[in-house]
This record gives sequence, structure tokens and C-alpha cells, in this order.
Amino acid sequence: MLGNALTAFREIFDSHLSQLIPEYPKSLYAPMRYIAALPSKKLRPFLLHTFVKGYIKNNRNDLPEKYWDLAAAIELLHNFTLIHDDIMDEDDFRRGRKTVHNKWDMNTAILGGDGLLALAFDVMSRGEMENFVHITREFSRSVLIVCEGQALDKEFEVLSSVDEPNYLDMIYKKTGSLIEASSIIGGYAGDAPATEFEHIRQFGRNLGIAFQLRDDYLDIFAEQDELGKDIGSDLRMRKKTIIMIKLMQHGKTLKKIDTLISDQNLRIDEIRSVLEDSGIADETNELVKSYTDQAKKKLDSLSINEDSRSILWELADYLEQRSH
Amino acid sequence: MLGNALTAFREIFDSHLSQLIPEYPKSLYAPMRYIAALPSKKLRPFLLHTFVKGYIKNNRNDLPEKYWDLAAAIELLHNFTLIHDDIMDEDDFRRGRKTVHNKWDMNTAILGGDGLLALAFDVMSRGEMENFVHITREFSRSVLIVCEGQALDKEFEVLSSVDEPNYLDMIYKKTGSLIEASSIIGGYAGDAPATEFEHIRQFGRNLGIAFQLRDDYLDIFAEQDELGKDIGSDLRMRKKTIIMIKLMQHGKTLKKIDTLISDQNLRIDEIRSVLEDSGIADETNELVKSYTDQAKKKLDSLSINEDSRSILWELADYLEQRSH
Repeated sequence: MLGNALTAFREIFDSHLSQLIPEYPKSLYAPMRYIAALPSKKLRPFLLHTFVKGYIKNNRNDLPEKYWDLAAAIELLHNFTLIHDDIMDEDDFRRGRKTVHNKWDMNTAILGGDGLLALAFDVMSRGEMENFVHITREFSRSVLIVCEGQALDKEFEVLSSVDEPNYLDMIYKKTGSLIEASSIIGGYAGDAPATEFEHIRQFGRNLGIAFQLRDDYLDIFAEQDELGKDIGSDLRMRKKTIIMIKLMQHGKTLKKIDTLISDQNLRIDEIRSVLEDSGIADETNELVKSYTDQAKKKLDSLSINEDSRSILWELADYLEQRSH
Repeated sequence: MLGNALTAFREIFDSHLSQLIPEYPKSLYAPMRYIAALPSKKLRPFLLHTFVKGYIKNNRNDLPEKYWDLAAAIELLHNFTLIHDDIMDEDDFRRGRKTVHNKWDMNTAILGGDGLLALAFDVMSRGEMENFVHITREFSRSVLIVCEGQALDKEFEVLSSVDEPNYLDMIYKKTGSLIEASSIIGGYAGDAPATEFEHIRQFGRNLGIAFQLRDDYLDIFAEQDELGKDIGSDLRMRKKTIIMIKLMQHGKTLKKIDTLISDQNLRIDEIRSVLEDSGIADETNELVKSYTDQAKKKLDSLSINEDSRSILWELADYLEQRSH
């Protein structure tokens, strides 16, 4: 059910999204069109869309344009974060394609990111939404939180250690908050009952944290040809992911890993064995599962239709198990 | 009258603005606090404020907080453009102080700019404004236009020539649109009659274009100790300002200037003479005056109170004649 829903959604969404981005001036809009057209899960707009459909009890895909605009706005926002993060992280490739600052240059990437954020707000504000004020506030708030998350992530890079609660707070801000906002804005757009927003918020927040934790896990345990970037690249850069934080809790294991990372060729099989033997792989999976379960539990409290409930449930399961 | 109004406004505004910017994470907010505290005209929030007061017929400065928030939002937006423009233009100093990317680093400046834009929207969306939808749309639209203006400005850098209409369109977008938005948002916040918005828009737009043209003129004709950057720096970088565009229309004069610019020490007195003798200085002043006059003329059609009308009139005159 999830697969069909996602395929049907993406087909309409992709063409809607691309026609929302103007053509001229080309130096502004070409990089924006480029990043928006990269293969992507479309997780955030799909979440928003599924909540809207769940609340307005519509199972078809012929929602009025204003809802598609709102879904596009959240994806544009997400793309803004990708362009600027890639500059800050000096990543030259994303999903196997050149990043914007690599394909064009730094200035183009800065301005392209700014343009995506501006266009996101512009598109968001077009629809005649009843809950316009709430939607705008949630939208604005989430962007600020994303910036705070990015700042914390960069601050963590130069700290000698970070504890798990601080790490979880950071990934909620950097990744979870937009997934949370997608869910809540879908709720507002679908005019959900006021009593349900706290549940929707918890659903999105937990799903978002689980999403990032799974990402951290996949850095080491994905198949190379599925990942779109080098296996172990977070580890090699000693990025403070959940894996690294758990390694720091196991001082001895960290030492073993240190030797393996220093090796020119990353000995990924040996690294995997160490993480499995030390229990870190399992602990990480359990953490992903526990956040996913907390998200799924919230779905029971919502008055959305059964189709949307099933899709959201399946989506949570899929994200927990995904291989890339 | 203008002087007193501006001083009284700035005193309240500055303290309101600084308390709107959080403290932590420090790597995000310290650069934002820094740029917001740099000496500045506060032209945009003051315009917004004056329109609000003119329409709600309040001459005192005890406006409800929501109006101060809105004025702060427009200044935060302006500060976002400054940080990112300074990166793109590789400017190391602004108003005699280090720019953000110079004082910190590039990543901090990118994120600080993003944070300002995010906070601008966040602050804008806090107030319980009657015309919330219109305000949000104007706000969003203006940011996108600013990005288009910046893109055009960068595109112009590599063109061999730019004609005057295209240049005027670019500066409207890059500089005029935020001044226009400040005026219109002030009108919405003060609940101006619907029939007056086109006049308000024309006032802001013409004032904004005049503002940038005067800036171009001051690059060469200001006093060094008043300008906060090197005299003739636009010219030295062969930036396509109105001066350069008029020079390109006078092929022969441009050649003379070329020789003077190539000189290690910019011979500013000789450059001034050439611009004066060729009539370019006068033509530029006349252009500034004509946009200023068009702006002022629109004030007659507005039902704002007489205090605000006088202040806006004086403000237009002041900006036309300003020395820095």
C-alpha cells in the first residue's frame, strides 16, 4: 500500500514542484531546479500530504492545488538545507551527483540556498488556508530550529566528546524538526482537531529522530552501491554520529576502531565485526526501533482515516528497515 | 522633526531588536547579534513604523509590541542580505567594522545569514495581525525578489555592458524591493485603505531606487571619513553602478576614467572632474531627484496623518541629499 501511494504521489508532486521554480534569472534558478530534480525520497512532502488526506478523508490524489503547494514548500525548505549543509560540510557529491557548490561555485550555492528558502515561504503563503497563521508559525519555527541544529552539529565537531542526550537533541533539531513540521502542517492544512496536535508532533519528532539514527547506522552497514556516498565516510571524518558516541562510551572499542580507521583503505568488514561484537550495532538498531515504536503508537490516538493510518504505519516501518 | 522622530525610534527599536535574538547556540546567534548591533540607519524599520503610526493615527512611540516585532523582522531580513552579500562580494569591512565572514569564517557567515532569515520570519509571524496573510505574502515575495536582484547583480559583473533600464530593474529588485515591502507592510499593519496600496508601493519603490542611485553617487563623491569604506571602491572593481553605466554611454569619457583607475593611487579629484565635466555627475543627481520626487508625490494621495506625511517627506529629502 505504501509503495503505490508513494509512487502515485511522487508522479504528481515532481511535476508540480518543478513548475513552481521560475527560469530567470538563470544563475539563481538553475541550481534550484537542479537540486529539486535530484532523486529523493520526498519523505517530507509525502508525510504532509498523507496527513492532509487523512484528515480531510480523501483517498484520491486530486487534492486542490493549495495542498500541493504546501507540500512543495516543505520540500523546497529541505532542499535549502541540503545546499547550505553541503557547502559547510565540504561535500562534493550527494546521491551520486555533484553538489551545487561543486557543479557551479560557492556564491551560486549560497544564493541558490537563499532562493530556495525564499521560494519556500513564497509558495507556502500562496494558498488560501484556514489555518494560515498556525502553518506560517510552524514553518518559520522549524527553519530556525534547523539552523540551531546545524550550529550545534558544527559545535560538536570540535568538542572532544558529546553525550547521547545532547546528540539526540541536536538531531531532533537538525533533522527531526522538519519531519515534525511536515506532519503538523499536514494536520493544520487538513484541519485536525486541536486535541490531536501534541500526538502529531510526537509522531513526527520520534519518526525524525529514528530517521537520522538509521542514517548514522547506514553509514557503516549499508551496501556500497545503495548508499550514494562512500561507506564509512562519517566514521572516517570522525563525525559524531550515534555510532561514534556509543564508541566513546566504550573506550577500549574506540581504540580498536581508531586503528582500523587510520588504515588507508577502510577495513569496513573488520569495523562491522567490532561494532557487532561490542553490541553497538544492536544498541543502535534498538534505539531506532524504540523511536519508531513511539512514533507508531501515536497514530492510534489520531482521528485520521484508516488508509492514512496504514500508510504512516508502513512508512515508519520502512524507514526503520531501509537500506539507503 | 525627522531627526527627533528617528532618534526616539532608534532608542526603543535597538533594545527591542537585540532582545529578540537568542543567545544559544552561540555559534549561530553571536554573529547575528553582532551584525544587528552595527551602527545603521534603521531606514527600513523606521519606514514601516512611520506608516503604521500614520495609519493608526498615533503620534507617540508606545505602539503595541507586535508592531515593534514587525519592524524588527524587516531589519533582520535586511541584515541577512548584508551577511550573504558580503561573502559573495568578498567585502572584509562594512561600516568600518569587520564583516561576519572576516571576523568568524565562511561557514559561520552562511549559517548566521540563514539564521537571520529564519528569525525574521519567526518574529514576523508572532504578532496577532489582522492582515497577517497579506503581510506574510509581501514579506516572502520581497525576499525572493531580493535574491533575484542579487543574482542579476552578479550576472551583470561578467557582462561587457548593461543598459540603464536593466540596471534600474536590478537595483529595484536588490535594494528597492525591501524598502517597498517595509512601506507596504507598514500600510497593512496600520490597516490602510485598499485603494492606497498602489500609492504606497510606488512611494517605497521610487524611494528605494533613489536610495541605491545615491549610494552609487556617494562611492565617488562622498567624503572619505564619512563613507565607512574606500572612496571609489565600486569604480576600482569596475562594478556596474549608474556611474559606470553612464560612463559606458560616453565611450570617450570611459577611456579617460580607465587610465585614472589603472593608476595605483586612485586619483579621485581627477575622476570627479571628469564626471563633472562630462555631465555624468549632474545626470546622476537628476536621476536621484526624479525618483525622489516621484516618491514624494505619492504621499499626497495617502490618508496618513500629517506627522507621518511630513516625516516621510523629510526622509525622502534627507536620503536624496545624504552624505553617507
